[in-house]
Parts: sequence; structure tokens; C-alpha cells
Amino acid sequence: MSELFDFGQQILASQPFSALLGTELTTFEPGKAVLSLTVRDELKQQHGFVHGGVLSYLADNALTYAGGSMLGDSVTSEYKINYLRPAIGDRLIATATVISSGKTQAVCQCIISVIGEQGERHVAVAQGTITKATPKA
Amino acid sequence: MSELFDFGQQILASQPFSALLGTELTTFEPGKAVLSLTVRDELKQQHGFVHGGVLSYLADNALTYAGGSMLGDSVTSEYKINYLRPAIGDRLIATATVISSGKTQAVCQCIISVIGEQGERHVAVAQGTITKATPKA
Amino acid sequence: MSELFDFGQQILASQPFSALLGTELTTFEPGKAVLSLTVRDELKQQHGFVHGGVLSYLADNALTYAGGSMLGDSVTSEYKINYLRPAIGDRLIATATVISSGKTQAVCQCIISVIGEQGERHVAVAQGTITKATPKA
Amino acid sequence: MSELFDFGQQILASQPFSALLGTELTTFEPGKAVLSLTVRDELKQQHGFVHGGVLSYLADNALTYAGGSMLGDSVTSEYKINYLRPAIGDRLIATATVISSGKTQAVCQCIISVIGEQGERHVAVAQGTITKATPKA
Repeated sequence: MSELFDFGQQILASQPFSALLGTELTTFEPGKAVLSLTVRDELKQQHGFVHGGVLSYLADNALTYAGGSMLGDSVTSEYKINYLRPAIGDRLIATATVISSGKTQAVCQCIISVIGEQGERHVAVAQGTITKATPKA
Repeated sequence: MSELFDFGQQILASQPFSALLGTELTTFEPGKAVLSLTVRDELKQQHGFVHGGVLSYLADNALTYAGGSMLGDSVTSEYKINYLRPAIGDRLIATATVISSGKTQAVCQCIISVIGEQGERHVAVAQGTITKATPKA
Repeated sequence: MSELFDFGQQILASQPFSALLGTELTTFEPGKAVLSLTVRDELKQQHGFVHGGVLSYLADNALTYAGGSMLGDSVTSEYKINYLRPAIGDRLIATATVISSGKTQAVCQCIISVIGEQGERHVAVAQGTITKATPKA
Repeated sequence: MSELFDFGQQILASQPFSALLGTELTTFEPGKAVLSLTVRDELKQQHGFVHGGVLSYLADNALTYAGGSMLGDSVTSEYKINYLRPAIGDRLIATATVISSGKTQAVCQCIISVIGEQGERHVAVAQGTITKATPKA
């Protein structure tokens, strides 16, 4: 695995909320990041679908990773997400890519799929701005 | 408490993900919903701030509640969120209001504050579309 | 009129696209901007409503003005807009306010109304990020 | 040219605002639409770049066309746009594609390029919801 991937895994391991949800880093290379998550009952809403907040979290985090692959330590400044269908299945895959990157900001997109009985289906798509973190004195 | 509020609490209690995070419904009336959440370490990212995914989840859920106060059983179709500053504090408050509501959709806004040593400060603002759920046969 | 308002009018007068559409600056004060526009046939789409692109332009410009009232010369980095109903009427009013402002960026919201036979009605709502322009060497 | 393309051109010709701006339909096929526009001074802002409102208009319209290729007569319900760099050049190309489409709504993305001395460069990217128009009685 690359240095970048190791760095990415350390960040993920140091995010208590990502540990709580069970997020894994699958791909992390310049311009691209893939996060995945095993669906379990705790992550669902009242109809048995994965809660939209879980999809949002995944999109947010994958967008930050994609931007961070170009910018280093980064935060998501803003994003929007469209839900495409109920997320029913066993595993979520969030794939984020960099559309445009400058010195301090990157614009990224993310598509989230669920893998289940019906194969892999898109469940959400997101777009947002990632900003390089400014170190504190 | 009103019937609407009781209905809202039942929905929240039946969302395993909301139970995992510890979300509480504070206000639920026509056109407005307030959700709150006690910050704990499990909800943080690597710098000790509340993870953006938690703020997103809260925004998403509060927007759905606000829309649902007009439409009945509803889902969030899409939303966007801007993070305003790092969320450092003890308690998150997400206040969502309906901007416009029709027969099947409502457009809502949400502002999230954190309450901590520095008083109450805005940490995120969101806007999105809530759609009436279509009952399954 | 204030110096800020004069500055705002000069900017508007130097935007050929705003002149083409006939935009006027009504209010420009710290944290708030109001732009207005007289509806004419050239600004409509195929059903006789004001074209969504005109509403988008107004939202974009009003957001930039609101942010610029805090940051000085600024650009809109991104925004989202929800259309609420067809824009039918005589005059459009876009009111933008600053939600949060830092050294280089501001997050602003904008609501657009149309004034017509049915009084004043909201037709769109927007939220976005305004960034201080970086002077070229 | 296809029937769909002819239909698309009729719609564009019946939009006075598109005529005012000089928009042309280049591609219109199921799931995809391309609009283009020759840059002229009237479409610029105070720094000589194409006004963001023109890019927004193009994104909005291209998104509607992409969604409309699946849904028939449609409107944009909402979208977000990120500006990537100043739009300097001779011609704008907005390419919109359908990400997901149902009976009444489609989620689409759009990328806008400018063609100029530096070749073709991305200047904005957008994502939004297109809704099938409901015929009036």
C-alpha cells in the first residue's frame, strides 16, 4: 500500500465517529477516494433503509478524502447530496473524485452505491467544496 | 404535548441510527422542528470537533421533520449544507423551518448551533427538499 | 446614500450582463443586499414564466453583494437554489443576508419574491459561499 | 436530426431568455443534452469574465434538457453550482447527463467548459433535480 493510503487509514482510525460506524478506506490515490461500510441495523431509519444521515456522513467523508488527496489535511466546507432511491442492501460504497483542484480548495463529486440482492445500485450523489485545513499556531 | 409531538417522538424512537447517536426531539409543530444531541467523544473526528457527518445527519433529520410537520410521513430528497466553524461544545441544536410547502414537497432550511463555553454559536446551515412518502401497496 | 451603496451601484453599472437584464440595487448595507428587476418578455421561458436562469442570476448576484458587504470585492464560489413556484408578475426582488462571515468567506442566504396581481410571493430561495476576490498582481 | 432534437430546438426557440442570450442546442438524446453559447461583452461582469449568472442559466437549462430527455416537458426544481475558475474565452459548452431517472423526477449533473486561447477548460459544475411538468387543466 502507498504512503498516501497509510496516511488515509491513520486519519480514519483517529475519527471516533468513523470507528463507531465501521467505515473502511478501500482506495486512496491522487484525485480519488473510496470508503465502504457494512450495513447493520443500528444504521437504519424507521422503514428499514439505511438512514440518510449515514449516506450523508459517507459522502461528506469521501469528498474530504478525495480533496485531501490533492490538498493534504482538509475539511469539507459545503456539499449537497441528492438521494436517488432507498438504500437497501449489505454494503455501501462511496466513490469520490476531484473535479477541479487549486492551492487551497478542491471541488469534488461522490457517488454512493449499495450492494445487495439486486447487485450494485446508486443510492446517492453529492458535490462539494473541500478546503485545505489551516494549521493552528 | 401535542399529538404531532408524540408522533414525532415515535418516529425518532423507531430510527435505530437516531438512537445510536442519542438524538432528542425538542420542538415539533406545524412548520418547525428542533432536534438536539449531546456531544460525546464517539461523535468526533480526528481534531476533536464533532464530525461533519453528525451535523449532516442532524440537518437531514431536522429538515425531514420540518417538512413532515406539513406533509406527514416524508423523506429528504436532497439538501445542501454549509459548515460555518468547527463544532466544539456540549450540545447540538438543529432548528429547521418550512420556507414553502405544497401538496407533495416542502422546501426547508435548518440552522445548527453548538452550546459550549462560548455560549451558543452557529456551526452549520442547510437547505433542502422534503418529499411526502408514497405508501407502498 | 452611503459610500457602500455608491460602491455597490458602481459595480452593478460595470456589469454588462446586469445592465442587459436591467437589475437595480435597492439596499446595500453591512450584511444585507436587495436587488430588483422589472419583468419583461425577454426574460421569460416557453410557458410565460420568468426563466429560472434569471432567478439564478439574481440569487447569485444578490448573494455576492451580501457577502461583498462584509468582505469587499468578492465572487460567488458556489450556491444552491430551490425554485418554489412559477415566477409570474411584474417585478422580482432578491433579498440576501449574511449568515456567517470570516476573513475570506461568507455564507449567505437569499430569498426571491415576485410582485404581481397576487401580491408578493416567494419564488426561490438560495444559499451559498462568497469568497473575497484575490487581487491580481 | 432526431424527433427529440427537433422538439428540443422548438422549446429553446420558444424561450425568449435563451434567444436573448443566444443559446444553441448541440446535442439532445436520451440521458444527455449539450447547450452552447457564444461569449459576447453583454454577458460579462465587471472584471471581463462571463457573469456567473450566465453560467447558472446555462447549467439550469442544460440540466432541464437532460432531465427532459427522459421525462418529457420538465422544470428544474433545484440545483447547486460550483464555479471552478473565471470563464474567459469565446464559447461556453454545457454538457448535462442524467444520473438517475424515475417516473416524475431525474437527478442530473452538468459540467460547463469555456473554449478559448487556452483550449477547453472546465469553469463550473452543477447537480440538480428535474421534475416532470404537471399539465394545467
